[in-house]
Amino acid sequence: MAGHPFDEAIRLEADTARPGAVWHGATHEAYWNMVGPFGGTTAAVVLQGVWGHPERNGTPISLTLTYAAPFQEGAFEVHTQLVSATRSTQHWSVQCVQQGKAIVNAIALFAVRRETWAAVETCMPVVPPAAQIAVLDATRTRVAWVQRYEFRPLRGGFDRMADLEPQADSITEQWVRDQPARALDYPALASLCDVFFPRLYLRRGKVIPAGTVSLNIYFHADEPALAATGSEPVLGVARAGNFAGGFFDQFAQIWRADGVLLASTQQMVWYKA
Amino acid sequence: MAGHPFDEAIRLEADTARPGAVWHGATHEAYWNMVGPFGGTTAAVVLQGVWGHPERNGTPISLTLTYAAPFQEGAFEVHTQLVSATRSTQHWSVQCVQQGKAIVNAIALFAVRRETWAAVETCMPVVPPAAQIAVLDATRTRVAWVQRYEFRPLRGGFDRMADLEPQADSITEQWVRDQPARALDYPALASLCDVFFPRLYLRRGKVIPAGTVSLNIYFHADEPALAATGSEPVLGVARAGNFAGGFFDQFAQIWRADGVLLASTQQMVWYKA
Repeated sequence: MAGHPFDEAIRLEADTARPGAVWHGATHEAYWNMVGPFGGTTAAVVLQGVWGHPERNGTPISLTLTYAAPFQEGAFEVHTQLVSATRSTQHWSVQCVQQGKAIVNAIALFAVRRETWAAVETCMPVVPPAAQIAVLDATRTRVAWVQRYEFRPLRGGFDRMADLEPQADSITEQWVRDQPARALDYPALASLCDVFFPRLYLRRGKVIPAGTVSLNIYFHADEPALAATGSEPVLGVARAGNFAGGFFDQFAQIWRADGVLLASTQQMVWYKA
Repeated sequence: MAGHPFDEAIRLEADTARPGAVWHGATHEAYWNMVGPFGGTTAAVVLQGVWGHPERNGTPISLTLTYAAPFQEGAFEVHTQLVSATRSTQHWSVQCVQQGKAIVNAIALFAVRRETWAAVETCMPVVPPAAQIAVLDATRTRVAWVQRYEFRPLRGGFDRMADLEPQADSITEQWVRDQPARALDYPALASLCDVFFPRLYLRRGKVIPAGTVSLNIYFHADEPALAATGSEPVLGVARAGNFAGGFFDQFAQIWRADGVLLASTQQMVWYKA
């Protein structure tokens, strides 16, 4: 995986004076959004700040970020603190910092998963397999991070951006994977939770200033479930619930092609009009 | 509202040495759960720790808690920190502390709402009005907090607990309000987001050890929308998405009777088998 742009974008180096507690990273042009880095890579970076901590135990169960201020291009720090722990769970606080100012405020729960009774209750939509769907020509977008994913839109996808008209709903269904292909791991899954453009675009039929202010991710996949995904496309399904007062929510799920739910996620998005 | 048990349960007193940053509260027997306080009142207490801060601006947009350790009966502290702010948004970190140990780790986003284009996209289920549904006899439960709500179960509610059998889905639909009735405000709404018993009970048809480890709330209501609710019942709809590895998620929405979405929430719940 050496040299994959995603790995470059989320690479953190331990601070020599405070290893584990402070990490050094940098924004990456390949995942640049309109006025800052793609929020998905930021979520992955926060996860990395916990993953590499010498005291880390288990795998991520939940991750929540609020995006406080835009990243400036260049270096940033990740500050990681283990707030509380039991034998099998860990509660973390993480902040991304530039020029001494917190630009991301986050918490995460890691835990040791166990064998239990299991069931998928909400079912994956019935859609044609990824192999039957044409790949989006991402070179038509000028937004860098969009070109770092291979999108196969089924409904309400980036292909609609060319001739945007108001839709009755904001549902997006799309097959998606990293571009170039890369085996799925927790940081990549976190990032995939944010690959849906603002639901508002579909409802209003135009591009309107909007940005994610809060992202919440619940991880359902254990490491074998991720490994079994490999670098195959996963199905992303997203929809808004409510638009009011300058904020709307989005609820999304990321499915493995065989119907295993990998992650569920909701986010709150600020919008201008 | 003086004397309502909910107001007693979420009452915080400012620390004289560190007002705003440190608050003193205490668990309340009227909202006791099986091995600690009801998680809904804990969410409300965290919100109060921000609400009363002298620098607080705007109203809650998002609130996320992870529950790190059980509360002991008695006094606790709430530690509140304003991490980052712009003119219209505030990013907060909040922890509940007992004996110097963090037992709740939380972040919140407050913001000033503005008049914008608005739409409810996911619609309230069509159900009979609250007045037509019998109130649950909560005296049959020995769990204190359940008696502090007036439940009118439509589907998968507490009335099913008497003769629990495995269900094909975990959907709960219920009208609910505080008992005694109390005008809806943000703390009460936060608490209402956690009034659903573990979805696992419905799927397995039995009571199994389970506890919320992460609760995420997105607030859609502004203060006029809350005021218009008054003390009328609201509709709560909840469902699990996936059960695996000792954790399952729950997605829920809280609706005003006229179809206004007040809050959407998801939580991750630990379970034993």
